[in-house]
Amino acid sequence: MEREAIAARYRALQDTICMRLEALDGMARFQEDPWERPEGGGGRTRTITEGALIEKGGVNFSEVHGPLAPAAAKALGIAGEAFYATGVSIVLHAHSPWVPTIHMNVRYFEVPGGPSWFGGGIDLTPVYVDIDMARRFHRGLKAVCDRHDPQCYAPYARWADDYFFLPHRQETRGIGGIFFDRISPSAEHPAEDLFAFTVALGEAFPALYEEAASPGRAQPFGQRERDWQLLRRGRYVEFNLAYDRGTRFGLETGGRTESILMSLPADARWRYDHRPEPGSWEAETLAWLRKGVDWIAQ
Amino acid sequence: MEREAIAARYRALQDTICMRLEALDGMARFQEDPWERPEGGGGRTRTITEGALIEKGGVNFSEVHGPLAPAAAKALGIAGEAFYATGVSIVLHAHSPWVPTIHMNVRYFEVPGGPSWFGGGIDLTPVYVDIDMARRFHRGLKAVCDRHDPQCYAPYARWADDYFFLPHRQETRGIGGIFFDRISPSAEHPAEDLFAFTVALGEAFPALYEEAASPGRAQPFGQRERDWQLLRRGRYVEFNLAYDRGTRFGLETGGRTESILMSLPADARWRYDHRPEPGSWEAETLAWLRKGVDWIAQ
Repeated sequence: MEREAIAARYRALQDTICMRLEALDGMARFQEDPWERPEGGGGRTRTITEGALIEKGGVNFSEVHGPLAPAAAKALGIAGEAFYATGVSIVLHAHSPWVPTIHMNVRYFEVPGGPSWFGGGIDLTPVYVDIDMARRFHRGLKAVCDRHDPQCYAPYARWADDYFFLPHRQETRGIGGIFFDRISPSAEHPAEDLFAFTVALGEAFPALYEEAASPGRAQPFGQRERDWQLLRRGRYVEFNLAYDRGTRFGLETGGRTESILMSLPADARWRYDHRPEPGSWEAETLAWLRKGVDWIAQ
Repeated sequence: MEREAIAARYRALQDTICMRLEALDGMARFQEDPWERPEGGGGRTRTITEGALIEKGGVNFSEVHGPLAPAAAKALGIAGEAFYATGVSIVLHAHSPWVPTIHMNVRYFEVPGGPSWFGGGIDLTPVYVDIDMARRFHRGLKAVCDRHDPQCYAPYARWADDYFFLPHRQETRGIGGIFFDRISPSAEHPAEDLFAFTVALGEAFPALYEEAASPGRAQPFGQRERDWQLLRRGRYVEFNLAYDRGTRFGLETGGRTESILMSLPADARWRYDHRPEPGSWEAETLAWLRKGVDWIAQ
């Protein structure tokens, strides 16, 4: 496949998703910052703020290329002196604690004359775990996966549990989703197949978010729920700054800081040794934040 | 020197500092959490919350020892199968944006039968840079340094600029201070000297904080100052989670998470591509957050 065709389709995906999200939000519009990278390529960072549904979010497209620094090549475990990467990256933080934070990413990476691969995923971080919401979300993801390869949902869901994990808290970031990385074309899944799967994920994203966001968006909430939301956002910040490979790789290799850190919430909170009251919904939520939950079967 | 004597003195330092800070705050008291480490040693985590001056802070003592995991030895660049470490670590976030956040640490590390070293530092992170405050703070630090070694202030101040730096923002965390690490005993500075210097730093800490905190603590402030404080705390979180070696080493080697992350502020904020108005005090503050400012001479 031509990498330019992949980038063009991802760029169009960004347009579609932003349109769908603006319609879903009903109030705020995305603001676009086009940017160029001195070493090659650039992107379109689109952010949305203070909407009716979304408090702070971003839908970023980038297509970057250029020399691959030895340190970056080593970090990636590859030999090569140049790279090409394109993708769409999304994080949406809603006002309401009844609406989960969602993240999506699809990406293509290529070492010219060397290996190439696709990666991606969607995962959900509820403030309060709602089993029905989690089941619907995972079933929706499984349906997209099944159309690509009926064997891929289970390993990709395990991959999300392992990736979106805070080892110092022994907590998953949320109720998981799917995650996959460095999937190179094969006889079974040529590049066209892998590419189509990433596009299908991107196209499924707005409906998956709408399904997770709609039931709670207009429900009233109080200070207790807001406080818990801020504490859970603290965990989101911990994961993104201390562990997320995309964030760390981006910051360390001189990526565009504001585009990378658009993933952070508007506000976050920390309390020393905070423990929710036993038996509360907050405590129940914590108990669900572990690896290996079969959400489809819940 | 006997390591137990070092630990006993650091433990006493924690007591003195907590007493002095309670008197300075005038309202809140420290809460103590003693903890033990299964592999050896433990600590006393002391936190203070919602005081008259301090919004969230901690003064931690720890004395830990045990086997040194190969990954940890490699990260430290040393050969050895066991270690011993003791120290006092402080971070204080005040309510008022006119009061800077302060950090102090003194520490001793030993590989039994191998190398040993001292480290430490104090640095100040104002929400608004006040040149008089910065000058007084650095002069105070220089006085402590000069009593130890008249040559050490300048390199230790440079070390703080290099260490407390956010490369992805090209900003220093604050107006610096001093920082030093892995200073092994020498003919010029035997262990007793280095130890005495760390104790002197700890003893100087309460007065340095009082001097920086007192002018602003009772001054009124409004929403604009509070907003800027929250954004600057976002930077503090970015530094601590993404770069601070102590935090990262602690989290990666299974340290006590709540003791390590007591350094985080109560609340923090992020806004996409926030830029203060040109000519404002906020913009002036940003302009000061760079390496190599000679605060003594300002």
